[in-house]
Amino acid sequence: MNITFIGAGNVAWHLAQALDSAGHTVQQVYSRRLQSAVQLADQLYNAEPTQSLDFSRSKANVFFIAVPDQAIASLVTRLQLPVHAILVHTSGTLPIELLSAFENTGVFYPLQTFSKAKALQMQQVPFCIEASNPETEEVLVSLAQDISRTVYLVSSAERKVLHVAAVFACNFTNHLLSIAYQITLQENLEFSLLEPLIRETINKALAGENPASVQTGPAVRNDTSTMQSHLDYLSRSPAEKEIYQLISQNIQKVSREL
Amino acid sequence: MNITFIGAGNVAWHLAQALDSAGHTVQQVYSRRLQSAVQLADQLYNAEPTQSLDFSRSKANVFFIAVPDQAIASLVTRLQLPVHAILVHTSGTLPIELLSAFENTGVFYPLQTFSKAKALQMQQVPFCIEASNPETEEVLVSLAQDISRTVYLVSSAERKVLHVAAVFACNFTNHLLSIAYQITLQENLEFSLLEPLIRETINKALAGENPASVQTGPAVRNDTSTMQSHLDYLSRSPAEKEIYQLISQNIQKVSREL
Repeated sequence: MNITFIGAGNVAWHLAQALDSAGHTVQQVYSRRLQSAVQLADQLYNAEPTQSLDFSRSKANVFFIAVPDQAIASLVTRLQLPVHAILVHTSGTLPIELLSAFENTGVFYPLQTFSKAKALQMQQVPFCIEASNPETEEVLVSLAQDISRTVYLVSSAERKVLHVAAVFACNFTNHLLSIAYQITLQENLEFSLLEPLIRETINKALAGENPASVQTGPAVRNDTSTMQSHLDYLSRSPAEKEIYQLISQNIQKVSREL
Repeated sequence: MNITFIGAGNVAWHLAQALDSAGHTVQQVYSRRLQSAVQLADQLYNAEPTQSLDFSRSKANVFFIAVPDQAIASLVTRLQLPVHAILVHTSGTLPIELLSAFENTGVFYPLQTFSKAKALQMQQVPFCIEASNPETEEVLVSLAQDISRTVYLVSSAERKVLHVAAVFACNFTNHLLSIAYQITLQENLEFSLLEPLIRETINKALAGENPASVQTGPAVRNDTSTMQSHLDYLSRSPAEKEIYQLISQNIQKVSREL
């Protein structure tokens, strides 16, 4: 396929290169900042950087929008595409309907976190695909399967649910790790001491059962004296103390229901 | 060294076998339930199961208490040891002073989560050692180094802080994963879809910087419309909604301070 990327951030960076390497041709890379478009185009076999959203004469037949969520709606109103082109966005949150001014649309959502500076195995990334019609779906699934082993058809409603789950499992988990980091730092302890325990916790939680069935710690064993001693320690950090209380309560609630 | 284990649960299970394999001799395994003591003793070269806490004639010179935290204090009052024996507990929470009825005491705390059913590489487990005197410290550090590459001297106060940090980083993280599991289950989505994203999140968080510096998600980018849509979705689960709000607020607070 001939492909155009609209956006040159972290997602475009990895996706454009993966598709290019899989034998497709990225024709153009658009960015508001020419320098970003040039930087990504330089990584591709035959791509031109551009600052124009008029693609009416483009040779591309699939257009990937990979810009921040809040920028998509206004960008779409300024976009000009060749007739019958497929337009997809790569957002985990936004519905396919956002693109409904066009005929053949879809969502091409990689369920992974990307940084330009960090290589990753695209084959391991689950892709969530949605399309406005069966012909488009076929094209998008085939493109996704060219770069990944795990491709799923996921509706906009399901994708939203996955995103909520990912916020808990990833964004919030990262925040808990940052609290742990802060606590060890304050006492001149090495955060890396916790690394084996963190990795083992994740391994157990991902072993296939409900993670609630392998819950450990003072809350689930109703060890109130340890919890009280932890809350006393946290009294100088009210926000962390509140998180400690709320999650401990919920662990106990879930464990009673299990 | 000649060693006795008091307790035959998950920690004793792994620690006794690791010490035995490293060339020490576990002489006795105590458990309230004889069957548990027999089960562990069967895994060891030359250990006897026992239900008696009178070890005054034991050949062992190091006694490991590996029972639930809340059982230690009362157990210690019933314990009889040979003169000059070393007595340690393996708790992440309790102070060394709990053992002060004895002369040579210590803490031998493996910073890891153990299950009998799951093998693990003891060499990778960080051990936190504390002792009531330099001679005892030397013995305990040497024992720990026989089974692990990472041995630290950690005071009772530092160990408590590490434990608070571990509750956030591990127990609470597991709970967030159980919430994500529940959300995907309710919508007939596979939880395993999130696995690559979860693992990459952990890899980034453990890469050495403050995890707050790699925070992603709607809260840190102040994407209020996504957050509102998630909160609407969570309105039927008030506890999860409250956790969502509280952690999102704290992510924003930390990001402003960073």
